[in-house]
Amino acid sequence: MACGVGVIGAGTVGSGVIHTLLTNGDAILDQSGQTVRLRHVADLNLEPLKAFDLSGVTVSTDAKALIHDPDVSVVCELIGGVEPAKTFILEALRAGKNVVTANKMLLALHARELNEVAIENGVDLRYEAAVAGTIPIIKALREGLAANHIQAIYGIMNGTCNYILTRMSLEDLPFDAVLQQAMAAGFAETPPDLDIEGHDTAHKCTILASLAYSTPVKLDDLYVEGITGITRQDVAYTQEMGYQVKLLAVIRKVDGEIEARVNPTLVPEDHLLAAVKYEFNAIYVESDIADATLYYGRGAGKLPTASAVVADVVDIARRDGAPAPVPFRYAHEWPVREMGLLCGQYYLRIVTEDKPGVLGTVCGILGEHGVSIASCTQKDEHGPSPVNVVLMTHETTEAQVKAALAEIDALAFITEPAHLIRVL
Amino acid sequence: MACGVGVIGAGTVGSGVIHTLLTNGDAILDQSGQTVRLRHVADLNLEPLKAFDLSGVTVSTDAKALIHDPDVSVVCELIGGVEPAKTFILEALRAGKNVVTANKMLLALHARELNEVAIENGVDLRYEAAVAGTIPIIKALREGLAANHIQAIYGIMNGTCNYILTRMSLEDLPFDAVLQQAMAAGFAETPPDLDIEGHDTAHKCTILASLAYSTPVKLDDLYVEGITGITRQDVAYTQEMGYQVKLLAVIRKVDGEIEARVNPTLVPEDHLLAAVKYEFNAIYVESDIADATLYYGRGAGKLPTASAVVADVVDIARRDGAPAPVPFRYAHEWPVREMGLLCGQYYLRIVTEDKPGVLGTVCGILGEHGVSIASCTQKDEHGPSPVNVVLMTHETTEAQVKAALAEIDALAFITEPAHLIRVL
Repeated sequence: MACGVGVIGAGTVGSGVIHTLLTNGDAILDQSGQTVRLRHVADLNLEPLKAFDLSGVTVSTDAKALIHDPDVSVVCELIGGVEPAKTFILEALRAGKNVVTANKMLLALHARELNEVAIENGVDLRYEAAVAGTIPIIKALREGLAANHIQAIYGIMNGTCNYILTRMSLEDLPFDAVLQQAMAAGFAETPPDLDIEGHDTAHKCTILASLAYSTPVKLDDLYVEGITGITRQDVAYTQEMGYQVKLLAVIRKVDGEIEARVNPTLVPEDHLLAAVKYEFNAIYVESDIADATLYYGRGAGKLPTASAVVADVVDIARRDGAPAPVPFRYAHEWPVREMGLLCGQYYLRIVTEDKPGVLGTVCGILGEHGVSIASCTQKDEHGPSPVNVVLMTHETTEAQVKAALAEIDALAFITEPAHLIRVL
Repeated sequence: MACGVGVIGAGTVGSGVIHTLLTNGDAILDQSGQTVRLRHVADLNLEPLKAFDLSGVTVSTDAKALIHDPDVSVVCELIGGVEPAKTFILEALRAGKNVVTANKMLLALHARELNEVAIENGVDLRYEAAVAGTIPIIKALREGLAANHIQAIYGIMNGTCNYILTRMSLEDLPFDAVLQQAMAAGFAETPPDLDIEGHDTAHKCTILASLAYSTPVKLDDLYVEGITGITRQDVAYTQEMGYQVKLLAVIRKVDGEIEARVNPTLVPEDHLLAAVKYEFNAIYVESDIADATLYYGRGAGKLPTASAVVADVVDIARRDGAPAPVPFRYAHEWPVREMGLLCGQYYLRIVTEDKPGVLGTVCGILGEHGVSIASCTQKDEHGPSPVNVVLMTHETTEAQVKAALAEIDALAFITEPAHLIRVL
């Protein structure tokens, strides 16, 4: 029995899914033994569909007609955003249709509700494409690593940020210049805030943390810091110290609480994540039985995202009408850990007038707050004032560092707020 | 309903599986909603089982009793080798039991027969652990990349070889010294031939090539070259040229034929595979929709291998008694491509007496066979004779290079057979 697919949304990802279903049926048949057939496409704008030969496929501007089309057993929601995507998905689930979506924002906000409706209706809700595009990280956490307690997840999950940071590092360019070029080339979205402020990564971080620890993590509980504060100097100084700056989602369980956060992070040069360049994504997982694993690929783009969407469709098709497997249910209610409790090493850059006693005062304040210094270098020694004091701390808590910096930033000879980057 | 598991073989991997099932049931339940219970262990040597609390578990020296134990619905075959593993697996499949195995040699030789018996009996035969241990590459090919035509697979799939090559490269050590240390530390098997001669990688290459192209590849049809011919000089010279030597399985489809081979390969420094160090494995896959993806982790070891075995068990448990999904069947009968047709760049090291005219003669012979030279360096110029002539060719065929080298090796002033390493 052929599996009938409906695609709501014929934008970038939707077009990629349509292309894949129309051209790669032979590959799908080889791997799954199943025929997967595009039966219905719905969008308010039918213009992009002119590129395809859609004979035998119903085309409409009515998503609800698609949902209730008896030829459609799997509904792909590819319009993005919260509404009307959520309404469509709920209606499809309640109509007994399996749903595949790439909608990370919706899942970050409403995964619990959508999951419950899927369970009530005995259908599948799948969203591999919502996190890191083509990388099968949801499959890895739920299936490949099913026998493991997850110890930590470190993810490079935003291609725009990784592209900007890579070029800043390799070409010694300032943030703004690379961002402008990326936007002009249509590579970064306009406006780019969702990417560069870390919110896109936070959506994915929320989804992964919830799955990894079987607990409903709230998006609002995450600490989120983007890459707009990363300067050319910080990239150069930390590179000298043997690090690459990467925007990471970090997910861990510490003392019965979930650490889930997004922030620029210094990754040692010899760590595999440091070798992940330009727009590529990678997710490094530490777990108790499998030890370290890493998954790498394109986190966005028309076809790579489509690959993940269609993989979910094929998994559903493979069941060949048998009931949906036991669905994912949250087993716990772990709280998200307060950021102040975070424990680690910190890179600090203090920008100050070049005056006697400055270093002593700064180091004194750090010491008073229990922040111990591993290394300290004064940069631009022969340049004009202000100067950069670059410090690497020993392991300390976020609360201690932040308290010390608040005091340091208030000093008369400090010319701009301190720069801080956490170390992996 | 709890899924009952039987483990045949309580050696390294078997003990890892027993440990995982006994300690990580909570993780399995969180991810799958299923209870997976160890019900029966069989081995001729019951000594290793003393480490475990096996109350409630049947322990026997009779694999057939385990297979027919009504409490066992999934049989894990973890004894390795062809017989009696094959007999046990066939008997289990015919008894309607699902089978999970880590037995790469058996699968490389008999996958087709075993698959067919599984299909006839409507049960699952799974073997994620047989290829690259904890790396979910079979899941990636069959599920994550199901919508793709695979263009190429490059795999570092033998930890012992990668460990030896990494230390040769980082510490400038000769092959024998590292091998002896690895064997003394119990890290490399004794004898190490299956690993260092490339046969272990060839087993895995056969399994992956068969899956990727849905065709029954024969182990004997593969070209297999191990790392015993790789010298300290070759590692050093190629490193100067910007490469790392890696033992790769290479799988591609070219003109309706399957290229499937195992040989040392020069990987450019900036390729992610070059950053895979020591005993870790990684598999790089190029495909038409997802583009490049890479999967990294431990390819061997008690717990990492157990992680993959139990993941397969959990996938079966997740069906909760529903029929096995449509099984994998070979859809094609592609032949394996002759090695002489291989097309690529070659690193050559010619060892010769230091006499006038040598370089001209060598280059002349290469030219006569249509092998064009991209670079040529004479090493050890001021050292004693013999000298090393290091050449990098432009793209050429294996047949051309081999014909030229046969002629060169026969020259009077050549002191040892030419060294050849293929370039990625």
